[in-house]
Formats: sequence, structure tokens, C-alpha cells
Amino acid sequence: MKALVYRGPGSKEWTDKPMPTIQAPTDAIVRITKTTICGTDLHILKGDVPAVVDGRILGHEGVGIVEEVGPGVRNFKVGDRVLISCVTSCGKCEYCKKGMYSHCEDGGWILGHLIDGTQAEYVRIPHADTSLYPVPEGIDEEALVMLSDILPTGFEVGVLKGQVQPGDTVAIVGAGPVGLAALLTAQFYSPAEIIMVDLDDSRLEVARTFGATKTVNSSRGNPVEAVMELTGGKGVDVAIEAVGIPVTFDICQGIVAAGGHIANVGVHGKSVNLHLEKLWIQNITLTTGLVDTNSTPMLIKTVVAGKLEPKQLITHRFPLSDIEKAYEVFGNAAKEKALKVILYQ
Amino acid sequence: MKALVYRGPGSKEWTDKPMPTIQAPTDAIVRITKTTICGTDLHILKGDVPAVVDGRILGHEGVGIVEEVGPGVRNFKVGDRVLISCVTSCGKCEYCKKGMYSHCEDGGWILGHLIDGTQAEYVRIPHADTSLYPVPEGIDEEALVMLSDILPTGFEVGVLKGQVQPGDTVAIVGAGPVGLAALLTAQFYSPAEIIMVDLDDSRLEVARTFGATKTVNSSRGNPVEAVMELTGGKGVDVAIEAVGIPVTFDICQGIVAAGGHIANVGVHGKSVNLHLEKLWIQNITLTTGLVDTNSTPMLIKTVVAGKLEPKQLITHRFPLSDIEKAYEVFGNAAKEKALKVILYQ
Amino acid sequence: MKALVYRGPGSKEWTDKPMPTIQAPTDAIVRITKTTICGTDLHILKGDVPAVVDGRILGHEGVGIVEEVGPGVRNFKVGDRVLISCVTSCGKCEYCKKGMYSHCEDGGWILGHLIDGTQAEYVRIPHADTSLYPVPEGIDEEALVMLSDILPTGFEVGVLKGQVQPGDTVAIVGAGPVGLAALLTAQFYSPAEIIMVDLDDSRLEVARTFGATKTVNSSRGNPVEAVMELTGGKGVDVAIEAVGIPVTFDICQGIVAAGGHIANVGVHGKSVNLHLEKLWIQNITLTTGLVDTNSTPMLIKTVVAGKLEPKQLITHRFPLSDIEKAYEVFGNAAKEKALKVILYQ
Amino acid sequence: MKALVYRGPGSKEWTDKPMPTIQAPTDAIVRITKTTICGTDLHILKGDVPAVVDGRILGHEGVGIVEEVGPGVRNFKVGDRVLISCVTSCGKCEYCKKGMYSHCEDGGWILGHLIDGTQAEYVRIPHADTSLYPVPEGIDEEALVMLSDILPTGFEVGVLKGQVQPGDTVAIVGAGPVGLAALLTAQFYSPAEIIMVDLDDSRLEVARTFGATKTVNSSRGNPVEAVMELTGGKGVDVAIEAVGIPVTFDICQGIVAAGGHIANVGVHGKSVNLHLEKLWIQNITLTTGLVDTNSTPMLIKTVVAGKLEPKQLITHRFPLSDIEKAYEVFGNAAKEKALKVILYQ
Repeated sequence: MKALVYRGPGSKEWTDKPMPTIQAPTDAIVRITKTTICGTDLHILKGDVPAVVDGRILGHEGVGIVEEVGPGVRNFKVGDRVLISCVTSCGKCEYCKKGMYSHCEDGGWILGHLIDGTQAEYVRIPHADTSLYPVPEGIDEEALVMLSDILPTGFEVGVLKGQVQPGDTVAIVGAGPVGLAALLTAQFYSPAEIIMVDLDDSRLEVARTFGATKTVNSSRGNPVEAVMELTGGKGVDVAIEAVGIPVTFDICQGIVAAGGHIANVGVHGKSVNLHLEKLWIQNITLTTGLVDTNSTPMLIKTVVAGKLEPKQLITHRFPLSDIEKAYEVFGNAAKEKALKVILYQ
Repeated sequence: MKALVYRGPGSKEWTDKPMPTIQAPTDAIVRITKTTICGTDLHILKGDVPAVVDGRILGHEGVGIVEEVGPGVRNFKVGDRVLISCVTSCGKCEYCKKGMYSHCEDGGWILGHLIDGTQAEYVRIPHADTSLYPVPEGIDEEALVMLSDILPTGFEVGVLKGQVQPGDTVAIVGAGPVGLAALLTAQFYSPAEIIMVDLDDSRLEVARTFGATKTVNSSRGNPVEAVMELTGGKGVDVAIEAVGIPVTFDICQGIVAAGGHIANVGVHGKSVNLHLEKLWIQNITLTTGLVDTNSTPMLIKTVVAGKLEPKQLITHRFPLSDIEKAYEVFGNAAKEKALKVILYQ
Repeated sequence: MKALVYRGPGSKEWTDKPMPTIQAPTDAIVRITKTTICGTDLHILKGDVPAVVDGRILGHEGVGIVEEVGPGVRNFKVGDRVLISCVTSCGKCEYCKKGMYSHCEDGGWILGHLIDGTQAEYVRIPHADTSLYPVPEGIDEEALVMLSDILPTGFEVGVLKGQVQPGDTVAIVGAGPVGLAALLTAQFYSPAEIIMVDLDDSRLEVARTFGATKTVNSSRGNPVEAVMELTGGKGVDVAIEAVGIPVTFDICQGIVAAGGHIANVGVHGKSVNLHLEKLWIQNITLTTGLVDTNSTPMLIKTVVAGKLEPKQLITHRFPLSDIEKAYEVFGNAAKEKALKVILYQ
Repeated sequence: MKALVYRGPGSKEWTDKPMPTIQAPTDAIVRITKTTICGTDLHILKGDVPAVVDGRILGHEGVGIVEEVGPGVRNFKVGDRVLISCVTSCGKCEYCKKGMYSHCEDGGWILGHLIDGTQAEYVRIPHADTSLYPVPEGIDEEALVMLSDILPTGFEVGVLKGQVQPGDTVAIVGAGPVGLAALLTAQFYSPAEIIMVDLDDSRLEVARTFGATKTVNSSRGNPVEAVMELTGGKGVDVAIEAVGIPVTFDICQGIVAAGGHIANVGVHGKSVNLHLEKLWIQNITLTTGLVDTNSTPMLIKTVVAGKLEPKQLITHRFPLSDIEKAYEVFGNAAKEKALKVILYQ
């Protein structure tokens, strides 16, 4: 079969690979019908994720059709349409039992990382019963690809951990795909205001159409002052960090109100300076986390019900065989005005 | 001044009463600009609430302008526009400190009940600092009258106690003003489905325009079977009882799913038969409560933000001096297609 | 092997049965080293649980040693010492993922009910990975048998659902093994008072030694009045119903304070009369439930740490082969002053 | 009257001051019968709290007898014995209504800081109804002084925000009075292990007698490694920081388990380096806060019930007139083996 293979820092290849096979009774083989590219894939390609070895098939998102199941798979059968979760969950370890699938002792984020991933014609999914979800009748499968990773990430790590409540003032720092996913799902809880902060006016415009009530371009003036002014000097109830660098974290700690929440979604490569000399008295709550995807069944229900329209995040579409072109577009997201790209076969 | 006075069972009078005066340093006198009639007022008039004595001015909802304040009032001054909460809260007792204002040891629901109420040109409000709310700039005051009672009631006792979550299936039994208030505020949490159950097709039509996704007319066929069919045999995550009689409570216990919630909002005059022989194993949670109005500040924010449009509940308007005519219309709600009436001066 | 077999209403037999065998790859066979008898077993013997067929081996509690595992079992191997949960959990269905193991679509309470149970030399445990727990080094295995059912039942359905908090006043109605289990585990949360209500003075004495601060014998005088007097007229924050009949449920609804909780643990055969005409205004929360046993890992930790001493519940010990004698003692619990009996081999 | 007065950095004086008088109708004057010295008072004396001006009477803890009340005080009368909360709460502002008394718009921590405090024969308490608590019959008043500040601080900011649960492994870094208060109140929730970390062996010994199950002297070897070893490499569920310097905060971030909590209680003068490059993936929750004292009624109940024995924290006693000697002892806490000192009159 064909697959997109990592070839060491800076290098990738659309090439032939052997078909995946069942290795454990709880495995399933899925034929990919739609997949996408994640910002994390770009990090891997830069060489930032050393655990990814030469020859690894990339990708951890997608929907497809079950091609084969091991004898221990109960919830799925050949021919079933399935959503692939970016996080593999064994369902049996201490962490899985608490819903912390990201820390699964025999799973977690392994697809396109420690085992071959979804940017291929076929993929092997371990612990299929607890790592796949049935595609409901009549749902748009493109939309569903957004539920493999970015929507549960924005929702669980940003909105749920941030405890967004009706009437709240929320700020989201970073209007990339995950920040926008937080923006879409924050609206489940009817906050009064959602202030989007980013460097890129065109992304801020997109944020407006996705439901942001106010926007701040952090490249012009002091974003902390701008947000404080927009909130009458009170700051925000919830600040969601969706970038992963010290400067955006600083904005969050500068704008959080007394009693408020900072929900860190960004993947950080460096430590940050936490201003406990100011915050110790502020009754704030700071949370971190990798997505568990335990909200996936609930998110599917909201898509079926029309409460969530993930399709808005899709800006480009390519046949899977054109994935290298798709990487180019996605890698130049600002210039191409790209959010998420769909690869189909 | 003029006021609507209870004259014993079946009798009321729009008549002259002395102006209210400051009796405690924490009192305020408010000139009513808008008030309304509650279903509870009709119960009082029937003689169902014996604590209400002959001569009592009715009414526990309204907005107005502060006319006078006692020396102990800090948050309000003469001329301030205020929302009157149906529940008086001293802010100092054990219950108030827990946010259980309905059980306030020197308050609770007393307006138009144990002390003179709001269906008058002026009203005395005890514990003004903690029982009034400032009217925000530019807000529609008619809409705000709905926040004196029915919106916090539907929200706190129905939606919050029922723990409505995104993706949930919710049923609301009773499409009167409070049931509709629950319907409007349940949408703060983006449930997937809201099934409205009532006997009156015209109210069910209104419910559809207010956001109900499905409706069941309980006068035709078996409503429990109808809801079970609509939910694929699973039942609902949250059943909100908004009537207050055994038959509607029975519907709720018949449709609640395993792990689900029954939130009782209705005012019951009789005991009900609770089917613990079925429910003991079902992991359900049943809640009751009188409104505390501790959600009022949050509800005001959602109105300001346009997330909640309480004005939809208003069907009729009268000058305050025509209140007797307004009672006639409201007393024939089905025929008049009346929800809430506004009385203004 | 030998086993205790149900022979229709009123009849049981200690007899030969074939050794259990692996039927699914996720099964394990466990050699029982310690088991016990549950009140539910007595109900079954009376014929109250029609799903139990003639020939069924009874029992749903126990510890033992893994004798054989199916190829799909990952967490356990032959020779491991294990605690058997009374509830079987597949770990894969919608309910298990939410921790509602009692509603597992391929499990729940099936041992000694729908499949053969633990009052035998060997037992087959389906979904072994998610239905067994490793026995920690050095723990007393007799104590652990109490964690198969009654301790998680008293804790999850009584204490957790009742939301016992430090400083609370708690009443437990029913001082049988499950009520006493609630008494032991309520103390995890340091309530100020625990009032035990029962008909039997000797059980109330036991309750005192287990940590009850006050006792009420409900056969003398009016127990509701007695509890109200003990609480200065306020009632209790949490009322735990641990019997399962209308009269004990009535005590609970008579003594719950405004804002309080009624946690129903009892297995009811009839409906009860719920006084909503009084309770609608009281902001109470009533919960029901079958045990999920999702607290078992936590309970094991508290036993290891010496915070919980389940052994106190054990009053009698018999060799497994004397199980018929043990049933006699347990069936005359009041006379024999029996709480839990241990059967060992 | 006599009082202990701040005289600028490094200087204090036991001197004559005018008797306090009622300034607002909601004030009360309290005659101090017992007070104490807080670590914060030492910080003030060093000049670290510039808001404290020359001439200010220090102290924010104590019990006493009501000497006079303003006309707006309802809950207390002359002669009542009262506990003084370190935090003044108006009961009327947005923050007080949410229970965030520390952020009260007309209060917060003002005693011995922005207004005259409790290290005096008499003190004026603003908002008496919501800032004082009645002393229950028969309670030990010395013990109660510990509830003015350190016990609610350790409990609310350490234990409650840290979400200590039964069976948890908890570490408390810092065995000073507040760390010990966290240690005492953490036991309300029956954690399996409480590991105390400090530099001082004698304080660690005290911690053992107060219920710590393990201790780590951080002056010998690497405390992070020591805690990781004690927890089998897993880290702790809850790490409570009770010192307020970067090195102790670092210990907390080094030992928190995946999914765990860091509850910061320490007052920090400098920012800290937060290792988001490690923690972003760890699903941790970090909280900060000043005490609100909204748990005071509950803590009083636990003292009355004998579940909490705050008296253990008292090591020295002096007549109030010897307060300067008491400061010397408390200022040499390690040498004097002092925890809390009681000043009585």
C-alpha cells in the first residue's frame, strides 16, 4: 500500500509500505477514507519529536472502514465505518478506568508516533474496541475527521478544564486550528464574551465568523492591556493558551481575573516564568493536559444534533495521493489561509 | 398609592393603600415601572396559600426606580434602576452564606406573600443590598422582569439541578412559563435534544420556536411510550417536571434513563408514588427546590450578551391600572394564548 | 468440584458440579480461597429473584487464586491472588466508560445470578482484566472479601451519592452489614455526627463501636421525632436508607434537612409515597443506585493504609464445606449476632 | 487601652492607644480574650508589607467578647463570645456572594494591615455580622484561635483546592504552622499517605505526631527523589506548597503525579520557573489563593465534634501584656520549638 513516511528531520516520502496485519486479538485494520495533517506532524518533520523513527508512517487522525478485526474485537465488524481516535486506550489500566486515556499504559498517543499512523491507505488500530467510534448514519465524514484530535483537544483541555460557564468572559490566545476548536466548543456553555487573541488578522476574521465576540491582534500594542480594557479592568474568567510559547502564556497570566482559570492547551518546549508573587493571592486555577478523547461520544452527539459544525475548520481538500502537496499548503498556513486540509481516497 | 390587594379567596381589588415607608435601615422603597403576574398569584387568589392575609398587596416580580433608601443600604442610591428578586436575602444567615437564599432566615419568598408585594405603584424591599440587582445600561427592562422569578426558577431548579450537559437528551414536562424558562436556559448547555411534553398544541408550537427539538402531546396516546420511542428506548438524561401534579411526575419517572436526573420544579400539593422498586437500581438523581435567585447576576450577563432573550415570553402588555383586566387574560392563558403579561407605569 | 447450588425456592444443596472452563478469551478461572454469604443470597433462596434458575451456583463475593486465564487476559496470570468484584465489567461499553459498571452491557451483577457464582471451589470470571483486582502484599484476605460487595455498596451508593462532607450530620437507617459498611466509610469524610437507626439494640451497640456517635432504636417511640430532637430540629445533612422498605424510606424523608441528601441503598420491592408536597421546597437531592465497584481500587488503598478495617464486620468463620451451616447462622443473624461470615478453603 | 503597634521596619511597641469606637452601623467592638501571632506579622515587622503604616495595631486572629455593636448588627449582641475571622466580609459584594471573601470589595484581609488589629485589649470589627462567628458552648477558646486564620488557610487553600480524596498520597512541603494545619485538615478526607517535607527534624517529628505517615528532611539528599522513591516512582496525588519560595515550589512540581494537584498556600515574593515543557502533558491542576474563611462554620463543627484538635498547634502561652516576649519566642521558632503562641487577658 501507499503511505506517507517520515525519513528523518526535514524529509518525508509518499511510498510503498507493507499492508498492516493483525498483531493482537484486539487489533483492527482500517482502510482510511479520510485523513488530515496536524500541526504536530510538522513538528515531527522538523525533528522535534525524537521518538519518531525513520520509516514511521505519520498521521493520527482519520475516518475509515473496518477491513479486518482480531478475534478479541467485540464492538466492530468488517465493513463498519469508524472514527479513529488520536489516542489509543486499552480500557483496562488504572488510567483508562479513570478516563485518562492519554496516560494509558498500553496506548496514549502512539499512532504516527510510536507505531504507524493514518496517512496511509490502511492502518492498524490496537485496542480497537476502545479506540474507535462508530460513524453515525448520515453524518458528514469530513466533519468527523475533526473529532479525531483537534475538537476533543480544544474542548477537553481548553473548555472543560477551563470550566467555561454561561455568562463568562473567555479569552483564547492563539487562533490556529486548536484555538478555533476551543472557540467552537466553548460556545456549548454560552459564555457572554469570547475574546480571540492572535497575530494574524485573517485568522481573527475567521474567529469572528466562528463566534468570537471580540478580537485582539497581539502584534499591535499590548495585548494584556487591550484585554483588560475590553473587560473593564477585571480580566477574564477563563484564559485558554493555545500556542505553547512563553509570550502567549504570559498574556494568559496577565489577563486572568481573580478566581479565574488558565487552561493550557499549547505544547511547550520551554519552561515559563509563573508570576506567583502576583498570582498567589488571586485564587486562580491553572490546568494542563494532553487530550484524553473521553469526550468523543459526547462530541459526536453534538455534531449529529447540529450544535457543532466542525466542517467550518476545513479549508482545503486533496486526494490522499497528493498528500505531499497538502503538506506544502498546510505548512504555509498563513499565506494559504489554511486551517485543516482533508485527504480522501 | 394604588395597589392590587388580596381580599380573601376569589377576591382582589385595585385600590388605595398607604405609601410604603422605610422600616429597617437596610430597606429601600422602589417605584415600580414594570411588573407581571405569576401562576402563584392565581393560586393565592384561589385561597391555596393560607399565609396570605386579607389586605396583602400581591406580586413578587418587577423592575423599578429606587425612591428612597435606609441608612444601611450601600449598593443602591435614589434614582437607580433596579431588578427586584422574588426572593429576599439577608446575606448574613447560614443559608444565605451557602447561596440558599430561598431558605433565608429573615427573607426567602416573602414579597406578595408575607409582606406587601410589587403589584403596586411602590414597594418596600427589605435587605435591599442583597435583594435588588442593578439594571445594566441599555438593557430591555421588559425582558428583565422575566428575571425576577421564572427564568432563575427554570434555570436553577430545572437546568442546574438537572445537570444538563452538552449532547444530552432532555425532556421538559409542562410548557407553561416556567417550563419554557427551563427550555430557554437549558440551551445554555447545548443539549442534543429537548423534548417538550404538554397537553396544549399551541404551547408546544411555541416551544418549537423557543428551541424544543421534539414535542409530545400527552393528551394523545401514552407520553412515556412516545418519549421512549423518540429516544430509541433509552430514556432521557434529564427530565424536568414543570407542572406539579402526580401524573406529570409519573411521566418523569417513566422516561428517565439509567444514570439520569429528575429535576422537580413543579409546586406539588399532594404526595406522589415513587417507583423505587424500579428506580433503586437505576442510579438516578431526583432533586427539588425553590428558586434561590443566586444565578441572577449570571442570567443578567447572558441577557446583556444576547445569549438569552426573555422577551419571547411576553405576550400581552397593560398599564398597571388595568391590572384587573390583565389578571383575566392571564387567568385564561390557554384561550388567550397568554404566557407572561407586562404591567407598566 | 463442590459448590452450593440453588434448587428452587427454599432449597439449596452442597453438591458436585463440573469444573468451570474458559469460555471467552477474556475469562479467568479462579480457585476460591475465601467467600461469604450476602443478604441477597437469602432473597434468592426465598425465590424473590426469578432470574436465578435451578442449578445455579450462588455467591458473588470472594478472593482466590488465578488458576487459568484466557489468551485475552493481560492484567493477571496463573497464581495471582485476586479480589473478585460482585459486578462484572467489560470495560468497553458506553456504561463502563462512564464508570457505571453496574449497567455494563455484557456484565453488571451476573455472578451467582445469571452465571455460576463464588460459593464453590472454583469460579469462572468473565472480563477478568476489568472485574478482578490484585490482592496487595501483606493484606488480610478476610478483610478484602468485604470489598467484593458490601463496602463499595455502602460507600458508593450511600456515602458518595449522599455527598457526606466534613462537619455533616449523617443518619443511617438500618444497621445491617450494608448500613454498617456505610457507617465505616462515611468516616472517610469526618462527619460531625453519625446517627444510627435500627430496631435491634445489639446492632446499635455494634454501630457505636464502629463509630456511630448516636443511636436511635426505631422500635421505641417515633424515630423521626427522635432524630429531629438530636439535631436541634434541623434534621440531617445526609440520610442513608439501608433497608429497602417504605417505613425506613419514610424515616429518611422525615429527617432530611433543607438542602440535604437522601441516598437510597436499600433494595425495594414496592413503591414508596414521596412527600413532594413538603419536599418540593426543601432543595433536597434523592439518589438511587446499584454498586458500580469503581471505587474498589481506592477502597483497597484505604485498607492497606489502615484507614478502613473491614474485618470488624466478620463475626463467624466456617470451612467452605460447612457452608450449609453458615447459611443457617447467617439466616438467623439477630439471634446469632451475625454480621458477615467467612467461608474458607 | 494597650496595644502592640507597628513603628516602621524592625520596630514595634506595646503602648497606649485610644479605645476603638463604632464607625459604621455594621461595626462591633470586641474585647480580646485570646489572640496570637502569625508569620505574616513577622513579615510586616521586617517591612515587607508596605501597606502597613507606622502606628498600626497588628494582629488578625483572636477570640473575645462583644463589647458594643452598631445599630445594623443583627447576629451578635453585647456579651456574646465570638471568633474573629482574619478576613472581613461585607456579605453584599459580587465576591462575597460567591464565597470569595478574601476579595471582598469592602473587606478582605484588612485587620492588622489596613485597619487596627487584634493584638490589643479591644478591636473594632467591621461588617460584624459576616466577619465574626459565635463561640459554641463548652468549646476550648484557645483551640478556636487557630480557626481565625491558619486552619482555614491550610484547609481551604491546601486541602480543598488540592482536592484531597480518600486513598490519596499527599505531600506537604513545609511543616510550619500552616503546613501543619494542612496536615491536620487533610485527614478529614482519609488520604492513605501524607508525606511531610521540611528542613527541620524536630518539626518533622511533630508532623509524625500530627498524623504524617512519612517524612522527608529536604536538607539531606534530593527531596524529589526521596518522595518519588516513597511513592514507587508515581509521585503524589496532591502536593501542598506551604513555604512560598522557588525551591519548595520546585519540589512540588517535581513530585506531582500525572493527573495530580499542586495547591500553593505559600506567600511568594518572587516568580517561579514553571516546567510546562514537562507538565503540559501531565494533566495537572495548580491552584493559588488567599484564605476566604468560608469554611469556618464547618471547621467549628469539626472542633465541636472532636474530629479536629487545633490545640495541638499551641506551644506557648503569655499574658497579652507580655506580647513583646511572645514575639521573641515566636521569632525564634526553630530554637524555641514554637508553633503557635497564645496571648490571653
